Order: sequence, then structure tokens, then C-alpha cells
Amino acid sequence: MEQTIQCPGFRAAGVACGLKPNGDKDLGLIVADRPASVAGVFTRNRVKAAPVQLCQERLAAGTCSAVIINSGNANCATGAQGRTDAEAMARIAAEAVGVDPQSVLVASTGVIGQPLPIERIRDGVPTLVAGLRHDGFGDLARAMMTTDTVPKAEVRWGEVDGKRFTVAAVAKGAGMIRPDMATMLAFVCTDVAADPRVLRTLLQAACDRSFNRISIDGDTSTNDTVLLMASGVSGIRLEAEAAQHRFQSLLDEMLLALAKQLVKDGEGVTKVVEIRVHGAADRSAALKVADTIAHSPLVKTAFFGEDANWGRILAAAGRSGIELDPDRVDIYFDDVQMAAAGQGCGDAAEARAAAIMKLPAYAVTVDLHAGDAAASLLTCDFSVDYVKINADYRS
Amino acid sequence: MEQTIQCPGFRAAGVACGLKPNGDKDLGLIVADRPASVAGVFTRNRVKAAPVQLCQERLAAGTCSAVIINSGNANCATGAQGRTDAEAMARIAAEAVGVDPQSVLVASTGVIGQPLPIERIRDGVPTLVAGLRHDGFGDLARAMMTTDTVPKAEVRWGEVDGKRFTVAAVAKGAGMIRPDMATMLAFVCTDVAADPRVLRTLLQAACDRSFNRISIDGDTSTNDTVLLMASGVSGIRLEAEAAQHRFQSLLDEMLLALAKQLVKDGEGVTKVVEIRVHGAADRSAALKVADTIAHSPLVKTAFFGEDANWGRILAAAGRSGIELDPDRVDIYFDDVQMAAAGQGCGDAAEARAAAIMKLPAYAVTVDLHAGDAAASLLTCDFSVDYVKINADYRS
Repeated sequence: MEQTIQCPGFRAAGVACGLKPNGDKDLGLIVADRPASVAGVFTRNRVKAAPVQLCQERLAAGTCSAVIINSGNANCATGAQGRTDAEAMARIAAEAVGVDPQSVLVASTGVIGQPLPIERIRDGVPTLVAGLRHDGFGDLARAMMTTDTVPKAEVRWGEVDGKRFTVAAVAKGAGMIRPDMATMLAFVCTDVAADPRVLRTLLQAACDRSFNRISIDGDTSTNDTVLLMASGVSGIRLEAEAAQHRFQSLLDEMLLALAKQLVKDGEGVTKVVEIRVHGAADRSAALKVADTIAHSPLVKTAFFGEDANWGRILAAAGRSGIELDPDRVDIYFDDVQMAAAGQGCGDAAEARAAAIMKLPAYAVTVDLHAGDAAASLLTCDFSVDYVKINADYRS
Repeated sequence: MEQTIQCPGFRAAGVACGLKPNGDKDLGLIVADRPASVAGVFTRNRVKAAPVQLCQERLAAGTCSAVIINSGNANCATGAQGRTDAEAMARIAAEAVGVDPQSVLVASTGVIGQPLPIERIRDGVPTLVAGLRHDGFGDLARAMMTTDTVPKAEVRWGEVDGKRFTVAAVAKGAGMIRPDMATMLAFVCTDVAADPRVLRTLLQAACDRSFNRISIDGDTSTNDTVLLMASGVSGIRLEAEAAQHRFQSLLDEMLLALAKQLVKDGEGVTKVVEIRVHGAADRSAALKVADTIAHSPLVKTAFFGEDANWGRILAAAGRSGIELDPDRVDIYFDDVQMAAAGQGCGDAAEARAAAIMKLPAYAVTVDLHAGDAAASLLTCDFSVDYVKINADYRS
């Protein structure tokens, strides 16, 4: 976050309103200068927080004027009062900014099952609105943080027909991260113009290549929300296939960069590990194996212990539910082959792998030799600090 | 293990042969005075260790004379040499005891992917056989331990038609435990007589009600083996339905007691928690919800932190893949209702639950109010020590 994050047509802000006991920033706002075209991707958890339900309904309009975001309380499992509070958040922001309350979206992250202290949000909004700036995305990124240790934001520029466009995004992650989707919020602003249906297609594809490929603890949040807002200020309209393709590439690249930041800053994470599965009979089988390895507590604690325990990787592949011939499986840590045809490659390989295990990031490749399909996931280790952070989260 | 564990018709022993670097017991043996009727239940992991493959083949005969067991090395992912070594283990034991090598079964537990030091086993067998005693099951239980902190053994007596019968069992567990099945070995000896097919039915049913209902870390081992051997010495033959029923009850009770011991002694475990799901549309849905809650790292770290975080339990239920109306879900910690119709029950409930969370064992009940089906699992917390134990396992 060394560069200033901003996007023509949008202002942002982040302040502290007392939701976090320690006084850190916990209330954020994005305002579009004029109603922006918008699309969203949300959690697939059957338990959806009130703000997620509100967003999903309001996205039918295809445009929005503002998004108000709080951390410190997820406003989830809060019943009818939760829905009333989510609508109140939107209305309070709308009145302060001077827009239609129906054009305001809401996102919340934090503890589940506690009533939202709406009065604190009401009291915080005047300062929040007063702080709106084109370069306010850094403050917003801070206001979204829960157990994140650093704010996450990215900006990229592209060109279509000689005109420049901008994509800026903020995100938060940390725990409860798995494909479909992470416990995460991400807000992407761009100055292109596009139909909401086009935005939806582009956003879903980019999420599938980024946020849906990362895993921290295998839990799926009730509040995951990714919004893509387009102001149109650049004068570029995403109609031609070439323009859409150019935008998609940039969006993919940016969300993948953010996804990697999320894993790296996952709770207690000391290693980021890419699990690559090759040679599967089909993509579904490759994904099952990658997913089982990426979530195995025994594999993840071995990563933490810098132990090249390929036996646990083979055992996880074996319980993934696919047909698998263990006597054909090869396993690599980066370029070091640890297992060939299901058996260990000996002390020399162990010694070379030991050095790789000390790196902050590396790849584990599993070749099933059963076909041509492949899949990959980004995961992390399971550390003593993960347990400590999550044992004490509510206290 | 205060009482002496023994069963008429069987002798057992356990010694140290140098497979464990610390010099602890690591080689065990059960010998039947005459060939015993036998049945087995094994891991469903597609990666099966060499001794599991050997047992599955030899069980076709329906009888066995001995079982040789080692800890410290799983003889898994060891290829053709692994199979040769498993056969050699059986042959060495057979020659020392004076039985047909084909009538000897083998079980191994420990690190995956390292060649079995068969010479140490060969050197240890004479002492092992010399140590065979009717009350040697305690030594055997010690020789099976890996990260277990205490040996596990049980004995029970029953009566059929005025005659007494005995069931004695030893087990080891600790890590890599989940339904279908645990990383566990269990050997059950009884003095009834029964057809191997009857034993198989009884054993599978008892496993489904015990070892297949416990979870420590969600990983499934490559070596899980449960054997039931029947000497017939009591003169009771399990033919009549009433006799089978009587035996089944006793076996169920005993394996459930052992399963609870396994969870309690799971790696780093400080809490044993029964997850009960009621009111599901069908049993499969109830099991999916129980399984997702029982394996959620966020739920399990909250148990460790003594945090009655029912929101994480609701969120886990929501991602379990079943249709679920969060606004109907009730959640209890023992008899304290924490959530009613998807919402928290307030500070008084939190205060009462706080006391329950400090207990070494309690139940979490989730009522979905969607039908009449139910399921339950035994799980445990996820502690700092679990991570430490598994980070350093091979070193």
C-alpha cells in the first residue's frame, strides 16, 4: 500500500466509531459521484448475514450510490432486528450523503450473533462523511480490518482505444477463508462504463480465479461480499469483446494479487503454499485432491513445522474420495521430487526439501498420473498463533 | 487400565526393539492357543499400508493364529519392499511361535514413507515371544502407542445360557482420527465361538457406533485396523439371535468406551465435545451438519479458548451443504440454550455457558427444526499443543 489508491468518480473514508473496543477504525464509506453500475458476488453459506441479504436484493436495480461498511460486528444471526439495523445503516448514510437510501449497499464483518450497536454507527457517520476524499481508500481499508494485520489495497491501470482506465480495490480477509468464498470483503471501483450484467460476468470469473482459489482454515463466512462498481468517468464502455477481455485480465491480476495478500496475512500464517494437482482424470477429481490436501490439519501443521512430510500429503490425497492408485503418485516440493510412484526418494531429497520448507512461499505438486486434468489452490500453514488468535477472538 | 486385561485362549506381549528412538516399547504380539475365528474392519483411505493389504487378503481364510504389531513406522508408501517386509514380519513371528506364516496377521503404525527396519523386528521377536503371557495385553497396549499419552485397554464379561464369556481389547489412537476410520489400531479378543461372517457383521456394527463416530483432526489414516478374534474357549457359540444380541451390546459398549478414551487422549485435547444434531430432514443431513461442526477449525479453537461462540457453530452448519433455515436453528451447550430461532439468548445464557465451557466434557446440541432425523459425533478442541505435536512429529 505504498501508492495512493484512488479511482475517478469515487470518494472513500474510514473512521473509528467505537465498534472495536481498542478504538481502531471500524466504519468505512465509498460514495460514487453519480450512481455507478454495480455487480456483486456473495457467500454461498446458507446462513447469510443481514447486510448480505440487503445487498442481494438491492443489486437488482443495477446501480448504487454508496456502500457503508463496518467491522467489529458481523450483524449476522441477529434476526429481524439485524435486518432493521442493516436498513438503518443504509438510511443513515444516505441521509448524510444526500442520496436515495435504496441506492446504498451495506457490508459488515466481525463477531456473529451480537446485536449491532447502531447508535455508534449513527454517531460516527457525520465524521465519516466529512472525511470523504478521492484518496480515502487507505483509511477505508483500515476500517475493514478484523484480525488482519495489514490493510490490503491495489490499484491498476489499463488502456482501451488509447484511453486510460483505472481499477482500484480494497479487501479484508484473515480467518474463515475457503473457496466459495473467503471471510472477506472486497470493494472494487473502476471508471469504465458497463452494463451490470457484464460486470457480474467479469467479477464472477475473476473471483473464481482468485478468491475462490484460496484457503486459510476451510471455514466459509456468513458475510463474504465482493462488489464491483463502475463510474464510467473514463469514457470507456465495456461493449466490444476486446475491451472486456482487456478489463478481465486486469481485474483477474488485481484480485489474484489481493487473494495472495489475504493468504499471506491469514491468521497466524508463516507459509503460503500453492497446492498443484496434475494428472487427474478430470478437473473435479483434481480439485477434490487439492482441496483435501489444502485443508488437512496434519499437512498444514507439518508446513508450520517445516517438515517435508510427503506421507501426510499422500494420505490426504488417499482420503479425498476419488479413485487413486497410490503406486503412481509423484510428489514434489518446488522442483525437488520427494516421492516417485508412491515411495520416498530418500535422504538426499529430504535434505534438499528441508531448505525449501524454510521459505515463506513454495509449491507442492502432486501428479496422480491418471489423466490430463489439473487444479491448484493457495493455502497456508496451521500455526500455534492461529489457535491462539481464534481461541480468544470474542474475549 | 487398573484391572488386568486378559481373555481365555489368548496370550499377548509387548517389548522394545528399537523402532522408537526413545527406547519405548514398539513391538507387540497376540497369539491364539488354537487358530481363532477372525474378522476385520479397515481404513477406507485409498492409500492402504502394506500390512492392511496383507490382512485384507489373509482374512479370507476366516481364522488366524497370531497378530504381530509394531509402532514407530507405518510401513506405508513403501512399495514392493513394504509388502515384502510385512510378509517377513508375519513369517518371523510364525517361525518363532510355531504356526503357519499364512495364519499370522500384521499391523503397523507410525511415520509414513520410510522403509521398515525389518532387522530390528527380527532381533526383537525372540524376546517378544518369550514374554507372551495371558495378562500381557497391558504391555501390548503400550507397544502400540505413538503420540498416545496413556495405553488403552478394556475388558468386559457377559453371560449366555448361564455361561460366562469375556471380551478384552486394546487400542491406540491419538491423531489422524475421523470417521471411516480413525488412525487407530484395535484388537479385540473374545472366548466365544462364532463364524467369521457373524464376527464381521458384529464388528462392523460396533465400529459404526464407536470408532466411526469420533473425530480428532479429520484426517483418515492409511493404517486403520480393527480385528476381532474369537477363541471359542468359553463353550458359547454365537448362533442364536439372542446370544448375538447379547454379545453385540457388550461389544458396542466396550468399543464406545475405547473410542471415548481415544478422543480424550487425542493430540493436545483439553475438551471432549459431543455434537448432537436433531430435527434434520434425514439422517444424511444430520450427519453432514454434525461432521462440518465437528471439523471446523474455528469451532474447535473456540472450544479450546472456552468461548461459547455459537455463531461459529451456526456458520459451520450453514456451509455444510444441506438446505437450512438459519432462522429456525436452536443451539444448546449442555442444557443452556444459547441461540433460539437463529438468534443469541443474551448475556445470562452467555454467563451460564461460560461455566460449561470450562468442563472437560460437554455436549453441543443443534436443533434444525426441519424434520425428525438426528446424528451425533464425538469431537475435541483444537489446541496449541495439537499444532506443536504435529509440527514436530517426524523430527
